Amino acid sequence: MLISKEELLTTSQRIRPFIHQTPVLTSTNLDKLTSAYCFLKCENFQKMGAFKMRGATNAILQLTVEQKENGVATHSSGNFAQALALAAKLNDIKAYIVMPTSAPSVKKEAVLGYGGEVIDCAPTLQAREETLKRVVKETGATFIHPYNDYDVIAGQSTATQELINEYPNLDYIISPIGGGGLISGTALATQYFSPNTTVIGAEPTGADDAYRSLEKGEIVPSIHPNTIADGLLTSLGDKTFPIIKQLVSEIILVEETEIIQAMKFIWERMKLIIEPSSALAVAAAIKNKDQFNGKKVGIIISGGNVDLENLPF
Amino acid sequence: MLISKEELLTTSQRIRPFIHQTPVLTSTNLDKLTSAYCFLKCENFQKMGAFKMRGATNAILQLTVEQKENGVATHSSGNFAQALALAAKLNDIKAYIVMPTSAPSVKKEAVLGYGGEVIDCAPTLQAREETLKRVVKETGATFIHPYNDYDVIAGQSTATQELINEYPNLDYIISPIGGGGLISGTALATQYFSPNTTVIGAEPTGADDAYRSLEKGEIVPSIHPNTIADGLLTSLGDKTFPIIKQLVSEIILVEETEIIQAMKFIWERMKLIIEPSSALAVAAAIKNKDQFNGKKVGIIISGGNVDLENLPF
Repeated sequence: MLISKEELLTTSQRIRPFIHQTPVLTSTNLDKLTSAYCFLKCENFQKMGAFKMRGATNAILQLTVEQKENGVATHSSGNFAQALALAAKLNDIKAYIVMPTSAPSVKKEAVLGYGGEVIDCAPTLQAREETLKRVVKETGATFIHPYNDYDVIAGQSTATQELINEYPNLDYIISPIGGGGLISGTALATQYFSPNTTVIGAEPTGADDAYRSLEKGEIVPSIHPNTIADGLLTSLGDKTFPIIKQLVSEIILVEETEIIQAMKFIWERMKLIIEPSSALAVAAAIKNKDQFNGKKVGIIISGGNVDLENLPF
Repeated sequence: MLISKEELLTTSQRIRPFIHQTPVLTSTNLDKLTSAYCFLKCENFQKMGAFKMRGATNAILQLTVEQKENGVATHSSGNFAQALALAAKLNDIKAYIVMPTSAPSVKKEAVLGYGGEVIDCAPTLQAREETLKRVVKETGATFIHPYNDYDVIAGQSTATQELINEYPNLDYIISPIGGGGLISGTALATQYFSPNTTVIGAEPTGADDAYRSLEKGEIVPSIHPNTIADGLLTSLGDKTFPIIKQLVSEIILVEETEIIQAMKFIWERMKLIIEPSSALAVAAAIKNKDQFNGKKVGIIISGGNVDLENLPF
């Protein structure tokens, strides 16, 4: 593996002053529903509301002094945009965030609120990449990829490191899959620190590119994904796919209605605001309850950033 | 005082096996907004989603063997109905809940889900009292009042006992006021265990009967209350009013828009589902931020039972 056990441990120490060690919550109601013992690692309580803060912080902390002077740049319309802006702000450096003009204004405002500079681009892959290239050229900023980056992956692993420290005997850990940064970090941490635990991915049937990639043995791009889990629309990367291929034992596909039901269940019964991408992982545990019967199941709750004025229920 | 310090300590021990010791959460964002250090006692994470579980449990645990055989009865369309049903179920006794036919079916279903028996009545005070009287007569059940009951008040005090144990140097504790059970327990616990802490009530301007009662020096009934804080529609009782009169230093009145703004803030920033009655207490801290500037402020988050399909934002 390109990321060593020591590197994961060092990462955990490195980012600790800048992130929250989030709580692990349990629920008798959820355990009844899944026939399992579920342990929710609540990254919805992380700074800016999602695990992305971990990877962004780790990437930024490893910049050279000169790189820090020139700032960082990324393209994202989601949680990584806010994470990079906030992680940069906490380290007194500049963040340039390329966002499509189609992104909701609430997301742009969140980035601006964290002190990031938003650069608009047309809502196409080509425009996004060209705009990013131009920004990097003009500013000298260092591009940090939202997930296809070893420092980012190592950062994301720290959520699972904390979970395993607190609950060392989990049978399974379920994590959602978008671009694969979170589950790559989850799988690496599990391999090194809890090798008897099985790592399972959860994906919406409407954005099942990782499932199809594993079947085919090569990256199948996410084309026209259609899911409420808006954090999971991206394709795997050449750094995340090999890790997933080697370390993730299976991917559970979940329907949209199952995601929404799980989200409502967690909101109503646990009083936790979790985003659809997180509800997906819970839905996977509910859906395959026979598999998890009597088992200890860690579930990575990726975040809690939702538009309260546009809920699915 | 009719409830002694020793009684509060005994209550805490008595109910401990049946309730959750809920977490106290903090938020940099909320502290910025209030200029204070806020400590949220999260009874939204309590069993059945509200502090009422504490008082209901304490009342039930003090029944005689014969009383337990005949069950308990109450009238409530809110959290106390569910609390009594669940507390009764956990102690293998029967609960009869008188509810107005106008109560939302979701609330009746919740009581039924906890094993309670729902007895319908017309939505008038007279019908409610007559129906309750009939149920008590027919079944021999013991009537437990939702708040005007010393055992219930002692039970509610345990939330504040836990808060003070964890944070012994609070300058203020803010608690919402409905019938006065919660704030009476809050004030008693504070008087005995943290006498330098000032207890403040929060009330909606649309249901300001406690405010007017304190002004007038006698109980002013809550007539035609109009507020989103549906847990706070009731009048003070002859057991809660004297405690409030003696131990609560002031009541902050809060507008409906302020309640909704505070609720949205806590949902968005803290990822916690809290009900309007709880948001009211947060709104009071925000509204009087000059008073709380630099102070340590405990806030009792009374519960998290909301209808997700009927939100104010």
